Amino acid sequence: MEQQVGSGSLCFKEAPFILSSASVVGTKEGEGPLADEFDCIGADDKFGQDTWEAAESSLQQEALTIALGKAKLAPEDMRYLFAGDLLGQLIASSFGLKSFQIPFFGLYGACSTCGESLALSAMTVAAGYADFVAAVTSSHFASAEKQFRFPLEYANQRPVAATWTVTGSGAFILGKKAKEGQTPLAQITGITTGKIVDYGVKDSMNMGAVMAPAAAELIGQHLADFGRKPKDYDAIITGDLGKVGREILIDLLLKQGTDISSVHEDCGIVIYDNEAQGTGSGGSGCGCSATTLSAHYLPKLASGEWKRILFVPTGALLSTVSFNEGESIPGIAHGIVIEACA
Amino acid sequence: MEQQVGSGSLCFKEAPFILSSASVVGTKEGEGPLADEFDCIGADDKFGQDTWEAAESSLQQEALTIALGKAKLAPEDMRYLFAGDLLGQLIASSFGLKSFQIPFFGLYGACSTCGESLALSAMTVAAGYADFVAAVTSSHFASAEKQFRFPLEYANQRPVAATWTVTGSGAFILGKKAKEGQTPLAQITGITTGKIVDYGVKDSMNMGAVMAPAAAELIGQHLADFGRKPKDYDAIITGDLGKVGREILIDLLLKQGTDISSVHEDCGIVIYDNEAQGTGSGGSGCGCSATTLSAHYLPKLASGEWKRILFVPTGALLSTVSFNEGESIPGIAHGIVIEACA
Repeated sequence: MEQQVGSGSLCFKEAPFILSSASVVGTKEGEGPLADEFDCIGADDKFGQDTWEAAESSLQQEALTIALGKAKLAPEDMRYLFAGDLLGQLIASSFGLKSFQIPFFGLYGACSTCGESLALSAMTVAAGYADFVAAVTSSHFASAEKQFRFPLEYANQRPVAATWTVTGSGAFILGKKAKEGQTPLAQITGITTGKIVDYGVKDSMNMGAVMAPAAAELIGQHLADFGRKPKDYDAIITGDLGKVGREILIDLLLKQGTDISSVHEDCGIVIYDNEAQGTGSGGSGCGCSATTLSAHYLPKLASGEWKRILFVPTGALLSTVSFNEGESIPGIAHGIVIEACA
Repeated sequence: MEQQVGSGSLCFKEAPFILSSASVVGTKEGEGPLADEFDCIGADDKFGQDTWEAAESSLQQEALTIALGKAKLAPEDMRYLFAGDLLGQLIASSFGLKSFQIPFFGLYGACSTCGESLALSAMTVAAGYADFVAAVTSSHFASAEKQFRFPLEYANQRPVAATWTVTGSGAFILGKKAKEGQTPLAQITGITTGKIVDYGVKDSMNMGAVMAPAAAELIGQHLADFGRKPKDYDAIITGDLGKVGREILIDLLLKQGTDISSVHEDCGIVIYDNEAQGTGSGGSGCGCSATTLSAHYLPKLASGEWKRILFVPTGALLSTVSFNEGESIPGIAHGIVIEACA
């Protein structure tokens, strides 16, 4: 198959490897169903820092450090670092990662940033521009509430469609090949890059409804570009649509004649016991898909239990300024094909 | 020369072409020394919109439309779009560019974003991932003042070291080759990607001092990676250091034994008549380097007057949150080698 596939997809001739990954999460995630799978659960959500933003920076630092350790690589082995978060001007990433001294590309795709960082990392390695690169993303419940919603002390009520921003960071080391004696986790064999999709939704407390159309278009485009059916994947995994967004996604794709219901999973649904933990429709944030991919899904590919997944982090492109000015909330999604090593 | 050069530089075996570019600016820029060189000067700084943010989105829309027209290409010819701006969550870009329906990578590198977008665009084309891509960046004086400083109505005093955010957007179309009958402007032959550099400066009214160390490290690294001297360039052009930052940059490099004073130019210095226009140390913002490259420097390469420049947009990685929490302001710079077509 050629490298350029359809409109916006790539199929890598030499698929880059995910050499290692790491997930670092907060207390609430550590009380959820994936507790045993995360690499590190913080003792409290401040991670030893004075501010929520510095706490989020610590999450990223910790995640990258663990991922590098697992791959037996040093920061100076990384030729590029692709990273981002939800905060204005990406302060969690710039302050969290500056000490690693790796040439840096800052990315913003809202909660889809994990997908954006993996796509650009894979493109960079597959092109021969780097032997090793790192991709890091994060979100923090408290820094996100402060950025996008209300002060925590205000204790606002949350509608059922609202999602709960995950406190967590996921880091991934990609490379042309593993170091001698090391076994890679999986390979990124292709990507589909999303367009900005705006169905005119203005409800910032219903991110699932905002992002589901972007996910539906991305998945439809991906299957068309690659000439595949949903059953060609062990799972099609969206980032953080939650229960409300999942229903919309499945409906939208059914209208196009595609039924993904039997293979669809959503990181926002699996990361919490949403009923018991009071997390509404599900988890959200860049950290949601990043930590769940690292802790829960990559091991299934590494063990050979699964052969191929389509990982689709989803993002809602709003700021408080655009929201307060009455703008709609556009969505975006990025698709990453991850396969067990050949 | 090999593709990977030194630590973080790339030299492209098949250098991508800059097929066309466009610059759209506001009224103040239209009263400055480059007035005759811009493609479009707005009649007022609202660009027909109700808000400053929507005005900035219009700038991007207009710039990309003009650049596409010059290259005789349509939005659907673009395989990817790399774009960013200074606003929280990149709202100028997402709202400005969503209607083009091009697979989208959102970028944030503060005022260095023009360099980041050109670097990733060039990497993408050189790798064969796309025949055509677009890179768009912008800033707007009024949306930036609202985001980072004070309401305009407050009419705060500005220290002499302060810079003036450029109202403008620059768009660039890159491709493997020009359409038949079209002549490309220049070629991107290499890049050097910057690390985050933090000298501990905390003065948000002196961005030149924040960014000069990042520019100095980038230029030093670049010359070492490529084994070149400053005189190998017709000009080494920083993004928006202004007069204050320029002095620091030249001093820092002199201490390393490198004298760039005779070939150094700064977009922030050339875009305004800083004394007459009251723009302090100079222009700044993603739009400063993007519009100046398009309007003022690319024509010198296209005409053959110049052979090779090193274009170094510079960024200050702060938000009001990080600043108010007492954090320092890290800087970053991205280096792009642009040459007259062979």
